[in-house]
Amino acid sequence: MRNIRLNISFDGSMYHGYQTQKNGDTVQARLEKAVSELSGKTTIVTGCSRTDAGVHAREFIVNFKTESEIPCQNFRYALNCLLPGDIAVNEVTDVPETFHSRFDAVKKEYCYEILNTPVKNPFYRSYAFFYPRALDVSLMNEAAAFFVGTKDFKAFMAQGSTIRETVRTIFEAKTEQQGDIIRFTVSGDGFLYNMVRIMAGTLLYVSEGKLKKDDLPELIANGDRTQLGKTMPPQGLYLNRVFY
Amino acid sequence: MRNIRLNISFDGSMYHGYQTQKNGDTVQARLEKAVSELSGKTTIVTGCSRTDAGVHAREFIVNFKTESEIPCQNFRYALNCLLPGDIAVNEVTDVPETFHSRFDAVKKEYCYEILNTPVKNPFYRSYAFFYPRALDVSLMNEAAAFFVGTKDFKAFMAQGSTIRETVRTIFEAKTEQQGDIIRFTVSGDGFLYNMVRIMAGTLLYVSEGKLKKDDLPELIANGDRTQLGKTMPPQGLYLNRVFY
Repeated sequence: MRNIRLNISFDGSMYHGYQTQKNGDTVQARLEKAVSELSGKTTIVTGCSRTDAGVHAREFIVNFKTESEIPCQNFRYALNCLLPGDIAVNEVTDVPETFHSRFDAVKKEYCYEILNTPVKNPFYRSYAFFYPRALDVSLMNEAAAFFVGTKDFKAFMAQGSTIRETVRTIFEAKTEQQGDIIRFTVSGDGFLYNMVRIMAGTLLYVSEGKLKKDDLPELIANGDRTQLGKTMPPQGLYLNRVFY
Repeated sequence: MRNIRLNISFDGSMYHGYQTQKNGDTVQARLEKAVSELSGKTTIVTGCSRTDAGVHAREFIVNFKTESEIPCQNFRYALNCLLPGDIAVNEVTDVPETFHSRFDAVKKEYCYEILNTPVKNPFYRSYAFFYPRALDVSLMNEAAAFFVGTKDFKAFMAQGSTIRETVRTIFEAKTEQQGDIIRFTVSGDGFLYNMVRIMAGTLLYVSEGKLKKDDLPELIANGDRTQLGKTMPPQGLYLNRVFY
């Protein structure tokens, strides 16, 4: 039995997230349809994480088991033909049978991108959060540094989430400007539900003066979701890289 | 009576072109709805050109007559709120009553953009034509130079078009690479129906060896549409700038 790993990208605008669900189109459902059609056998595809509706992935890893003998290069070509234009397969590789795209991931990097221009830009409407006023990028960057470390991030979890183990390690967190885009980049060993979007909303609150940067360590320790910034909308969020 | 000029941008992906038609959503219909709502009176908006379904505009000029006394800055703010995310109003200015966005335009600049990467990119699927093989950009640039001048461009007009006067002046035509994008830029005093998309298809044929660069002057002079390249799909085409 082969274990095949795909490195994919997708524009999440038109999907109800990555993971298959009863109602609504998903990236997983599209992948499984294409892989099953090619391999001639109903195939389950395992993804490295869930993503919400409207969230994008510049790199997302999946794997599946198959008895198909199609060479990797041909798999890539055929999948890219079968899949819609908003899902691309960048790499196809044979991996050891034990490889699991979710359990084996040791680090994930996300970006939250803000379009900071006086007027909205039609070409970014699904690819960044539009914010027309001035932002203090260096203050946001200093605030982001408080996210780094092994901490209980309960305060950064969507209310109603049933996860109990809320300690995560954040390796890096920074905010920088590149042209009209202000980009918050964060990497960690795992993320709670809506964690990156709440972090981004909290940095925005710091820039707006609604939260004080130096209060962040205490607010994180308090574990109270209501004392932090808003959950930012999905279109600015990208899963950027996954490490094994 | 005020004459108000708008500088707008739009993502044409979801529209049946700029100009109002019986069936299908258009940019003009959206603008007229928003302007009429703001000014309190049904208002006709005149655009600088037609664009086809799926074609984009980085800059597109429209004007309309109104008795509304709303200041320009407020017009801009309110229109951007009323219009959908894929249409943006960049500038609103009062102009002399004689200004006509179509008749007064003296030069238009279009770009046709090709994504030249080995694998398709989900984020460009509506914003460039995907071409995975090598292209000879400098040869395409040399070929583009033959478009410059005052010529009968009948061969570059969609078959079935009823326009009789097919002489146009092309001021500049070049092809260059910027990262993964190969961009054909052309400016002229006017363009026939599908002209830029046929020019782009012709340059592709030259790079592919299907047409010889040095035959272009003769092919242009022949006026035979069937001897040139394909009409390229709309998603790579941008109206870039309009000059008055």
